Formats: sequence, C-alpha cells, structure tokens
Amino acid sequence: MQTRNPVIKALSDKFPILDWGSRYNKATFSDDAIAALIVAIMLIPQALAYALVAGMPAQTGLYASIFGLSVYALFGSSNVLSVAPVAVISLMTAAALGKLDLASEAEYVVAAMMLALLSGGILLILGLLRLGFMANFLSHPVISAFITASSIIIALSQIRHLLGIEAGGHNAIELGGSLLQGLAQTNSTTLVLGVGAIVFLLWCRSGLKNGLLNLGVNRRLATTIARAGPLLMATLTTLLAFGFRLDQQGVELLGEVPKGLPGVQTPDFSPELIRSLLGSALLISIIGFVESISVAQSLAAKRRERVDLDQELVGLGTANIAVSFGGGFPITGGFSRSVVNFEAGAASPAAGLFTAILICVVVLFFTPLLYWLPKVSLAAVIIVAVSGLIDFSVLRQSWIYSKADFAAVFLTLALTLLVGVEVGIAAGVLASILIHLYKTSQPHVAVVGRVAGTEHYRNVDRHKVEVFENLLSIRIDESLYFANTRYLEELVFKLVAQRPKLRHVILMCTAVNKIDLSALETLEKINETLQELDIDLHLSEVKGPIMDKLTVTSFFKSLSGNNYLIHNQAVEDLRDSEPQFSVPRPQTG
Amino acid sequence: MQTRNPVIKALSDKFPILDWGSRYNKATFSDDAIAALIVAIMLIPQALAYALVAGMPAQTGLYASIFGLSVYALFGSSNVLSVAPVAVISLMTAAALGKLDLASEAEYVVAAMMLALLSGGILLILGLLRLGFMANFLSHPVISAFITASSIIIALSQIRHLLGIEAGGHNAIELGGSLLQGLAQTNSTTLVLGVGAIVFLLWCRSGLKNGLLNLGVNRRLATTIARAGPLLMATLTTLLAFGFRLDQQGVELLGEVPKGLPGVQTPDFSPELIRSLLGSALLISIIGFVESISVAQSLAAKRRERVDLDQELVGLGTANIAVSFGGGFPITGGFSRSVVNFEAGAASPAAGLFTAILICVVVLFFTPLLYWLPKVSLAAVIIVAVSGLIDFSVLRQSWIYSKADFAAVFLTLALTLLVGVEVGIAAGVLASILIHLYKTSQPHVAVVGRVAGTEHYRNVDRHKVEVFENLLSIRIDESLYFANTRYLEELVFKLVAQRPKLRHVILMCTAVNKIDLSALETLEKINETLQELDIDLHLSEVKGPIMDKLTVTSFFKSLSGNNYLIHNQAVEDLRDSEPQFSVPRPQTG
Repeated sequence: MQTRNPVIKALSDKFPILDWGSRYNKATFSDDAIAALIVAIMLIPQALAYALVAGMPAQTGLYASIFGLSVYALFGSSNVLSVAPVAVISLMTAAALGKLDLASEAEYVVAAMMLALLSGGILLILGLLRLGFMANFLSHPVISAFITASSIIIALSQIRHLLGIEAGGHNAIELGGSLLQGLAQTNSTTLVLGVGAIVFLLWCRSGLKNGLLNLGVNRRLATTIARAGPLLMATLTTLLAFGFRLDQQGVELLGEVPKGLPGVQTPDFSPELIRSLLGSALLISIIGFVESISVAQSLAAKRRERVDLDQELVGLGTANIAVSFGGGFPITGGFSRSVVNFEAGAASPAAGLFTAILICVVVLFFTPLLYWLPKVSLAAVIIVAVSGLIDFSVLRQSWIYSKADFAAVFLTLALTLLVGVEVGIAAGVLASILIHLYKTSQPHVAVVGRVAGTEHYRNVDRHKVEVFENLLSIRIDESLYFANTRYLEELVFKLVAQRPKLRHVILMCTAVNKIDLSALETLEKINETLQELDIDLHLSEVKGPIMDKLTVTSFFKSLSGNNYLIHNQAVEDLRDSEPQFSVPRPQTG
Repeated sequence: MQTRNPVIKALSDKFPILDWGSRYNKATFSDDAIAALIVAIMLIPQALAYALVAGMPAQTGLYASIFGLSVYALFGSSNVLSVAPVAVISLMTAAALGKLDLASEAEYVVAAMMLALLSGGILLILGLLRLGFMANFLSHPVISAFITASSIIIALSQIRHLLGIEAGGHNAIELGGSLLQGLAQTNSTTLVLGVGAIVFLLWCRSGLKNGLLNLGVNRRLATTIARAGPLLMATLTTLLAFGFRLDQQGVELLGEVPKGLPGVQTPDFSPELIRSLLGSALLISIIGFVESISVAQSLAAKRRERVDLDQELVGLGTANIAVSFGGGFPITGGFSRSVVNFEAGAASPAAGLFTAILICVVVLFFTPLLYWLPKVSLAAVIIVAVSGLIDFSVLRQSWIYSKADFAAVFLTLALTLLVGVEVGIAAGVLASILIHLYKTSQPHVAVVGRVAGTEHYRNVDRHKVEVFENLLSIRIDESLYFANTRYLEELVFKLVAQRPKLRHVILMCTAVNKIDLSALETLEKINETLQELDIDLHLSEVKGPIMDKLTVTSFFKSLSGNNYLIHNQAVEDLRDSEPQFSVPRPQTG
C-alpha cells in the first residue's frame, strides 16, 4: 500500500472507493467479475421473490438490487456485502405498509419508496453522527428469535402461492386461519408444480453437487452449478408453464414485467405518510443494520480485514436513499448472498457494481421472458431460502444458560409470531435492555468486619470477623448509577434501622468504578438523613478518578464524616467515638 | 410489637392496615387527627386548583382527594404520604387529554376517569408482579429537570387567570404566544387581586410566621397558621368578591360547585379511547410513582421506618382505580403535603383517612361558599406552589459533574418546555438509559504483558513488560453482555490483524463478573473465526460462578484452546508453541 497524505487518508475513510479504486488491477477485476456473475444468478430470482414478499411489483426487486448494489459499492466499507432485497426486511416492509390504508398499487409503491428513504435517512444520520454503536443494543438471542419467527411468517405467507389460493395476514394466527379457510380451493396443478420445485431446489443443494463431483466436475464449478438451482428451476417451470399453457390450469403467472430501467422517481412527501412510517422505518433500519453488520464483520474477520461501523451506516443509508428514488423498497446486506460473494472470491466492492450491471442487462432485455414464470416458483425459492433460517435451538440454549435471556427470547418469538414483526422486535429490544438494567440494579453489597489481628475486611455473613456496635462498614461491589442508587439507599436505611447504637456508617468503595450524578445526589441524601439521626457518613478507599470528580462538587463539604484512604484507618479512628454528640472533624479528602 | 404467626404476617404485608390497625390507640389517634386537620386546610385549595390545571371541574379535585386518601390508607405502606392531586400529574393529565378530540366537558371527565383507571391499573399490575424496581430507571437529574420544566409550564398556564384573559397551549412556546396575544385584554381588577393574593401567600410563608413568633405564639401554632395561608387568602378573596360584586368588574368566579358526594361512576371503556390513552397512562404512572416513592422513602428514613416499593405500587394503584370510579383524575403522593403531614406528626395512614373525612364534610356542606371564590385566587395558590419547584441548579451541577448527565438533563428540560411534557419525559428516560448503555458498551480492555521476573501482568501501554510474538494476552475489565460484545469482537480482530505471527489469543477474565448469552455466542464466534486463521483461543482466571454457567454449555468442547486457572501458566505453556499446527490439548476447565 502506498503512503498517502492525511487529506487523502481522511477522504478515503469517507469514500472507501478512493482506497480500493486506486489499487484496482486486472487480478482484482477478474475475481470480482466471476463473483458478480455467480451472485447475479442467485440474486435475480431472489430479488423478484422478495419484491412479492414486500407486496411490491416483481420488477421493483430488480430495481432495488441495481440501485442498492451500485451505491453501496461507492460508500460501503465491506468488500463482500451484497446489498439488495432480503427476506426479513421485505416482510417488515409489508407489515409497515399493510397497516396503512392504501387504495392502489401505485400508492403502495410510493409509500414503499418513502419507507426506503426514511430508513436510509435514519441510517445515514446515525452514520454521520457516528452512532454505529447503537447496533450493540440488540442482543444476539433476541435477533435469532426474531429471524426464526419472521422466517416462519414468511414461509406461511408463501403457502398460499403453493396452494394457488387467496390468503393473507401479518402474523401466524391470521395467516394460519386464512390458509385453512382457503384450503378447499387448492389448485392441484399449482401444488404439484410448487412441491416439485421445492424438491428440485433441495436436491440442488445436496444431491446435484455431489452428483457433479462424482462425475468428475471440479468443486468450484459444481458449487456454482448447484447455486444456480433457483435459476434453473425458474427456467424449467417457465418452460413448463409456456409449453403446457399452465395458466389455463389455474397456475398464476408473474405476467407483464415492464422492460427497461425506471426513471428517477420521487416518493410521496406528505407529512401524514412520513409520520405513520417513521416508527417502522426506525425498526427496519436497526434490524437491517444489525443483520448487515453481523455478516460483514464475520466475513471480514475471516480475511483479517475490518469494516467500519459508522461507514457501513453511511453505505447502507445512501444505498437505501438511492433505492427510494429508483422506485424500490428497503434493502440491506443479505447473509447467504454475501457468503456466496465471499466464497466466489469477491475482492472489492466493485463485485457488487458488476452484479448491478448484469441485473441491468436482465431488466433491459430479458423481462419479456419473465411473463411465463409461475408465481409458485418464486414461492418455492422463498420457502427453501427462509427454511434455512428457522432455528429453535436458541430457546433451549437460553433456557439452559440464563432464564433472563430465555424470557427475552421467548417474548420476541411469541409476539412476532402471534402479533406481528414490529411488536415482536420492539418488545425484544425493550425486554433485553430492561433485563440488563434489572440485573445491574441490585449491586452486590456486603456488610464487612475485620478479620481479627489483620487489617483485612470480609463479609460478615461468610467469615468470622470483628464488628463494632457503633459503626457499620458496607462494601459496594459495583459502580453506582441511577438504576442502583435507590437499592443502595434502601439497604443503608434498612441496616441502620436494625442498629440502634449506630454512630458511623463507612462506605467502602474499593470496587466502585463510576459514580453518576444520580448516585452523587443519593449519597448526599443518605448523608443528610443520617445526620438527622445523629449518624455520620464516611467513605473509604475511593478510587482516584472518582475523587477527581467529587472534589469539584461540594460533596465533601457537606459530608458529615471523613474520607479515608484506608478502610482500617477509618475503623481505628471511629470505633471508640462517643455515641452522643457529633464532633466536626477536618476533611482529609 | 407482638409476635405473630406467618399467615398474619403475610396478610399484613399485603394489607398494612392489619398491622398498624392492630396497634392503634388513643395517642396515635390524636396525633393523626391533628395532622389530618392541618393537611386538610392545605389540601382543599390545592385540590380545587389542581383540578383546574388538569382541565377538570373544580369539585373533581375534592372527589379525587377523598377517594385517593381513603383507599391509600387501606393499602399503602407509608404513614405520612398524602395521596391526592399534585401539580405535575395534573399537568400531564391535561396534556394527555388535550391531544384527544373531546367535544364536551362530560366527555373530558370520563376520559380523565379512564386515564386514572389505566394508570392505576398499570401501577397495581407492576406492584402485584413486584416490579417496583422499575422506578430506578429514571435518573434523579432527569426528574429534577422534568419537574422544573413542568412547573414553568404550569406557572405560565396560570398567568391567563392572573390577567383575566383567554389563553392556552401545552408548551412554553404555545403558552407564551397566546399570552402575548391576549395581553391587551388584561382585566386590571383581576390582576390586582391576583398579585395581591400572591404577595399575601409569600408573606404567610415567612413574614406571618415570624410575626406570630414575635408576638409570643408558640412555634407549632404559628407554623399551622402560616400553612393556613392559602385557605385564609381564599376566604378573604371570596369575601371581597362577594362584598364588592367583583364579578361585575370582570373577575371570573369559580361558580356553581355541585354539593354532595358523587355516585359511583364508570369511565368510558371504548377500545379506541383506551388505546389513545395507554401511552400517557404509562408515563403518568411512572412519574407519579417515582415522585411519590421518593417522598415516602426520605420521610420514612427520618423516622427509621421503611416503605415497601411493591406495596406502594399497590397502594397508589388501588387509590387511582378508586378515584377513577369517583369521577376524578390521576393522583399521587405530593411532596409538600406529605412533608406537612410528617411534621404535623401523622403516626399512621389513618391520618389520610381523617383528612378524607374532613374533605367529605366540605363537599357535603360547604360547596355553596365556593361560588364566590375567584379563579385568580386558585391561580395564585398554584403559582406560589410550583415556583418553589423551579430549580435550574441541576443544569450547572450536571455540567460540572458529567457532560453525559448534562446532555440528558438539557434534553429533558428543553423538550418539555418547547414540545410538551410527554415528549420531554420520554426523551429524558430514553436518553439516560442510552447514555448508560453507551458508557458500558465500550469496556476497558488492555493488552497485557509480563513484568519481567514476576508472574504479574500489566497493560503494555503503561508498563515495560515482556510480550511474545506468537501470543496475545487481553485483559477485560468489565462484565460481558450484549451491549459490549461487538466492541470486544472488533477489538480482538483489530489486534489480530496487526500481528501476522500470532498463534494464541488468551482472554484474561479476572474482572469479568457476568457473561450473558450474547457474549457467549460472541466468544464462540471469535473462537471459530480464529480457528480458521489457525489461531487458538484460550481463557484464563475465569471466576467460579461463570465457570458453573459455561460448563453446562458446549463452549469448552468447541474452544480451540484451553481454560487456565492462572494466566502465567497459560503464557508459560504457550510461548514456545509451534506456529504451524494446531495441537489438540486436554481441557483443564
């Protein structure tokens, strides 16, 4: 890598393309081109399918891929992330738009564009404010549970295409009920075609690859052919539909797909629409970012590369904004496609750009071929794709490991399935944060006494130690902050209420790393109340950084007792004090 | 205290009245009766005034006091808390109901009743589920800022009564603008009466008491007379209004106040109303609880008594539910009244019951006297009461102490003033939780090396220590949980990327007190990725409780390296290892 001046360094942090672009060569190009072709083969049926999951016209999935992939290539920091429609985000889009009262498909499309613009805007703002750390507030088990539940809902929502019936709903109950109602109208040709497609796709995943390997085909080619399974299946079923006029048997076809690129379009900027979509956009952007960054990070680590959280936000944000003006719907980095891109050897974000170009070619010249593609084929692609995401093991794992984690996981899973995706994920995030706060809101606190003959202090409940009637030593084993100050306050006064002869309370702060303003105010309140009971409050062994903060306040001025460097010194100093009168002492702090 | 069997003990935990009731005697009765009289004198004008703040008919403030005080006496655990209308909760009620499109006063009243029912229900459920700890999630500085901003809004909202004009709004901007518009219509008689009332009230607080003391009146009587200031002022202005027919001068009177107790009423149970009030009810119940419990705890501590958080939730919850059926609006324990009750010597919750009886008497017999009470007198009571709550010192304090705390305080203050109470407090709560999570999301982590000739390990950035090219020792100084695992992961891979000869990573867990499921999954992921890079992951000095949890999982089975009791043992064991091949070793954990 050439040495560069700081301006170029700073610029290329914001525009990663300046960095990898300057090092681009023939070898990188050929790696990227091969990866791009493999990803395009996989993405085309996915993009069409996920557009239908989102409730959008099929071609918008292709538009979203073109705009998403190419803009992410300019701003994103991952070499392998494939930013295009993904199952869960498409489902969340459908859920968000389903709540609105939209009269026509045209209205639905402009609302989806606004949703992409809003979630892109949120991501971009978070990135520019360097708030990438917010992705950390989602716990892994909660995300796993959410992905599992969403995948079930997606699979259920596709069964209607498999049966060739009308059905709908935004949670498992609604979908299940509506499927049961329509069951009698099942179209047997569609069902046979769909089941056949699913079996073929599953066979491609394992049987086909092994078969090719046994025939002596090299591993890379065999893997690539196996990955073309969805495209092969789509081609086959399209030919079947065309050859046997399956539409006359009641098989639903994709129908007319407009040819050519969309012009630049503008979303619907009505304030009412923005207001009603903002919450959904926030959820979509958070989930999209977390899903994307997890994939990008693990793939980068495998090559000892790094991705920049904040730059990823910018990349995803700009990609979604571009998609919005291209008539698409929210997108993000997908797991399986990115893994394929990685394994196919993508060497730079240009691979994504090349995929976008290939999809452009499809949009420009091949859309008429899509007319005869049966919808049930796309449903089969979706069902096979999401079935790989369903994983209940997190329930068992969390049950064994921690009941609190289990509670958050179960809540997310149950609410997503029974109520819907937005309620489910919101409840999961909230639950995991509350559970964490709850755990830290009850710090470990021990009344300590002196091990006879030493200067060591130990928990009175576990060790035989010396204690003095007129003083109480309390060791706090946690940083003090707003969520645990009330607990401390309660505990101190409970202990005080049990000790009528008490004259001094000493808080031993060996393990206190932080004291926030709430905690400081609580200490002041404890001090004041103890003073009215004629009890002095002392501190001992306060750490340096906390002392620095406390000395700029008036805390030590109002403290009725002293601040001791060493706990034993406090005990020696106070054990023989008179219990009646409060004697003012000079401050040592 | 008599020894009691466990059943009675358990029952009296749920019904504190069984406890204090069984010990009730003549002395307690006389203490309670005196306190009740003093509180009633103070509460009557307050109850009428806060009803107007809430936008309710004046008498509903009296109803809310009667039902609230008496039901709290049955279930509450504080001896001195005075549960009735308070300024901030009344303001929040007005804000919640102002958002709705309510046609008539009757509709407004039933909506307020539903709001009381919902917030009572939320409090009761939290209490029964023993979730009292949730009050801890509000930081003190945020509450201070909220109370200050709310008090300013309340004071501004009362200025229209002082000027005798029409004005309204839910934040400082709306109120200020509408007051400026109406300024020209100021009624001078009303203004003179109002300013006179305020001056009189302020004089009662200081001048009157000192004057009485100088005249030789004993301190207790002098304090009581001074506290009767609002009642005296209300009586005087009522007489003035009646004597000089001030209504003909444009002074607005309270007018007809229905005589007698309200029958049992039922709120409006329409699902739409419930849905639109639920968020507001949640905020009201949280703020009400936090305000109430803070007062109750500090007063109880002064007498070495205790209050039970969960029982307080039950007490406040049932009180609000009762108020709802009595035609009132949300209430909670007020600060100033409770202090008065405490100082007047209230010995048991019966004091509240007696206050309720006194107010019943007023409602039954004296409401006709209220006809001539000028509204401006009530506005004066409110302005004087809330002006004592305005305190900007929290801004300076938090600025000095911690910029993060300042950010939360400033946000709460600014949004409450400029947007409204609900947005303000919600933003404050969210900000303080996010700031806390942010602080803990970047744990202190140090790369450590060995102090030559010893077995001690220290930060390589601060000390001259031995390091080995093929191994990396990382000490983690914080519990691992979902909000900081991504940071750890990033850091490990960043450090690994810088060290091409690396063969072993050892995580030194001396200061790790907890590992949640997210963190466990991250460790598994780190292990897996390092393995692909031919690097082994080891742990050292893992604490006992964490070992107990980890051993029930398959973590140690999949761990590529070992678990060492002592860090130095790991370093000794691994420093000379071959860099090429991974040698399986037996687990020591």
